[in-house]
Amino acid sequence: MNPLNYTDQHRERFLAELKDFLCIPSVSTQEQHRPDMQRAAKWLRDHLLAAGVPLTVIMETPGHPIVYAEWLVDPDAPTVLIYGHYDVQPPDPLELWRTEPFEPAEIGDDLFARGAADDKGQLYIHVKALEAFHETVGAPPVNIKCLFEGEEECGSPSLAPFIESHVELLAADVVVISDTHILGKETPAIIYALRGLAYVEVELTGPQHDLHSGIYGGAVHNPIHVLSELIAGLHDENGRITIPGFYDNVRELSAEERVELAKIPFDRETWLAEAAVTSDWGEEGYTVIERTSARPTLDVNGIWGGYTEPGAKTVLPSQAHAKISMRLVPDQSHERITRLITEHLQNIAPPTVTVKVQDLHGGAGAIIRRDSPEMRAAFDAYAATFGREPVFIREGGSIPVVAVFQEVLGIETIMLGFGLPDDNLHAPNEKFHIPNFYKGIETVIRFLNGVGEREGE
Amino acid sequence: MNPLNYTDQHRERFLAELKDFLCIPSVSTQEQHRPDMQRAAKWLRDHLLAAGVPLTVIMETPGHPIVYAEWLVDPDAPTVLIYGHYDVQPPDPLELWRTEPFEPAEIGDDLFARGAADDKGQLYIHVKALEAFHETVGAPPVNIKCLFEGEEECGSPSLAPFIESHVELLAADVVVISDTHILGKETPAIIYALRGLAYVEVELTGPQHDLHSGIYGGAVHNPIHVLSELIAGLHDENGRITIPGFYDNVRELSAEERVELAKIPFDRETWLAEAAVTSDWGEEGYTVIERTSARPTLDVNGIWGGYTEPGAKTVLPSQAHAKISMRLVPDQSHERITRLITEHLQNIAPPTVTVKVQDLHGGAGAIIRRDSPEMRAAFDAYAATFGREPVFIREGGSIPVVAVFQEVLGIETIMLGFGLPDDNLHAPNEKFHIPNFYKGIETVIRFLNGVGEREGE
Repeated sequence: MNPLNYTDQHRERFLAELKDFLCIPSVSTQEQHRPDMQRAAKWLRDHLLAAGVPLTVIMETPGHPIVYAEWLVDPDAPTVLIYGHYDVQPPDPLELWRTEPFEPAEIGDDLFARGAADDKGQLYIHVKALEAFHETVGAPPVNIKCLFEGEEECGSPSLAPFIESHVELLAADVVVISDTHILGKETPAIIYALRGLAYVEVELTGPQHDLHSGIYGGAVHNPIHVLSELIAGLHDENGRITIPGFYDNVRELSAEERVELAKIPFDRETWLAEAAVTSDWGEEGYTVIERTSARPTLDVNGIWGGYTEPGAKTVLPSQAHAKISMRLVPDQSHERITRLITEHLQNIAPPTVTVKVQDLHGGAGAIIRRDSPEMRAAFDAYAATFGREPVFIREGGSIPVVAVFQEVLGIETIMLGFGLPDDNLHAPNEKFHIPNFYKGIETVIRFLNGVGEREGE
Repeated sequence: MNPLNYTDQHRERFLAELKDFLCIPSVSTQEQHRPDMQRAAKWLRDHLLAAGVPLTVIMETPGHPIVYAEWLVDPDAPTVLIYGHYDVQPPDPLELWRTEPFEPAEIGDDLFARGAADDKGQLYIHVKALEAFHETVGAPPVNIKCLFEGEEECGSPSLAPFIESHVELLAADVVVISDTHILGKETPAIIYALRGLAYVEVELTGPQHDLHSGIYGGAVHNPIHVLSELIAGLHDENGRITIPGFYDNVRELSAEERVELAKIPFDRETWLAEAAVTSDWGEEGYTVIERTSARPTLDVNGIWGGYTEPGAKTVLPSQAHAKISMRLVPDQSHERITRLITEHLQNIAPPTVTVKVQDLHGGAGAIIRRDSPEMRAAFDAYAATFGREPVFIREGGSIPVVAVFQEVLGIETIMLGFGLPDDNLHAPNEKFHIPNFYKGIETVIRFLNGVGEREGE
């Protein structure tokens, strides 16, 4: 039997195991889930061992542990480093979930659960591909190293230091990550560019304590009004970001690249339906695909201040808060952008408030070579599994570790994603398209075979 | 013994009873406190009976109950209707309280607790004044009716219908309310004008579900951005409200009234310290006193949307919300203003969002005659107790029931307040100045005596 047939025969058990994994609420940003993080790391270690991976360890970090695994088959064979993360986003707002976020529910061809696509389902694809090699041909065709972290959803604070202090342990020829989406059920795609991220939290303080708005309103500057003015001023009427210097280092799209991006299949109606909006919006002069992949953007991800419970309370609050993230493109530095927004907000705020800006996290973007043998192996693996050649696309999201692998280990990353655009990542009702779970395992098996063959050519 | 001496001798017990009252978390806007509302109503009934008031009943309403009491001493004597409320504001944000909101704490001359000044402490002044009459001269010098409601902090939805359906029961010559503040510990004041209130909740919906900001950000209009723009646009650069028609019916201040308002003692440094700000703000061309009493104002009392828990979540939220209140002056109608802001927000919102505006509550403002015999009795009572004549002021807050008493019962209200400007109403660390509790009882005794004498003149 070959690994592909083995996968076919064990689909139901593989899915049942994934459901088990998804039941663990491994929310890395919330302190109360610390024991669940430990539980998820142990679960993953046990299932790597059960899949036949000979060396699997939990390595502590200052934050959540890293699960590291190694299967060295031949010193002359190439080495593939598989990266993934076993932590998930918080499930809020809970009331908008149609099923329980940590009780996986199969509805039609979809599996609903927090982490189903991001990233437990996609990570587990690799574990099952390794099992398929183990149970059929005995071992994978290349050396395997796995680096599964538990802090991706909180900015991976421990990951770069870990990679920097384990350069030899992690030495490899290529990294593969399954943590992105393709364009549609039948439209595979390979991401060759990722955006960077700068994420800050803004705290405005007006009066030192809450006031009665009937007594002080109209004579004390309300920090919610000021915060609204600051946010309203961050975009101009053409959808451009107004922070001075923000676009200074942006690598402008070449005419050639714009032509290439325009070739990506884009169905406006499908996109509007997936986003659940009636119209698009954004920076003038750019298409939706350009805006969401090749242009930097700014979004307020959260805002709060004053009384937010049911009913009326006539308070003039002391403080107002916002979480603001910016997606960055080559060659913007997230450190510089964080500095620029901090200075800008402090410069334009009126003297009636004080502004505190906290750097929540940041990461660099990346552009990946499209002419490597590993990229060719990925291309062929997708084509064989999906029956259709993948398109090359830029990705709007951020996987800062890709830049870290480039800089620290000197290796490229292949984004071997199997999600779909409507997977509701970071939102209620996250799901993973179950056929993609199986196709993912097949694609990974073909990819690893391809890398093994190509290197031997 | 006369009632004033009796009060002197029972100060400590009176204060201990008030603390007991303050321990009941009678938060009318929060469903979980419904049993506490019942408990507070019963406590108040029992203490009215104990004070000697012969008829005291709890009357159910569609919302929280009304405690009604009656002490009719002489059909030829005038009747005073005492209004107060036993419900309190929510204590949020809890973390900013230096003591527990429902565990009254005496610190120096102040009693800290939610409801200490607004309005349990001021309401209880009347109960103890009645006890002082009962225990010394046997009965008050006038007929007494008490109307204590439990929905003031949620807009008194049941009160106006109750008054309308009990016009005979509530028939009286004058209403007295102690639910306002004087200008300083030694500066009594009588409020002769109150502002009205229109309070709305705004819900903006962009995409029908939350989105990943890395995938859709920059191509989908973020409802937090839109809400910020709408709020930022509600004031112009001169601090004026931009809602079309908002100022149409505002009764402009006469030159004479401005001279009068300018006579009110106003120490800028004290005001800044009480508001805990470094500078004032507001509508150009008006003083702080004018802005907070004679001009209409608009404040966002709460704002929320997206991810507001610790850490980073890269969500582009489906919705953003705000609570907005407007203080109104004669002759603005709260119904009209609610309609104007609703239409305005819907008109200026971009087509990328839908806007829902909910009318949370509203009430009319009022101006009270200054030349009535009851006003004279109040003036003399303050002067005798505080050793200083009170000044006449306009109040920035809203007590919509004053307009209801004028319209439905045809009687004027005397605002016999004993709070201080720094009592932290509706804010953490609410307090009541304990000497004002005792002076309040004395003033009420003198006021009731004064009303009795004057009518007999």
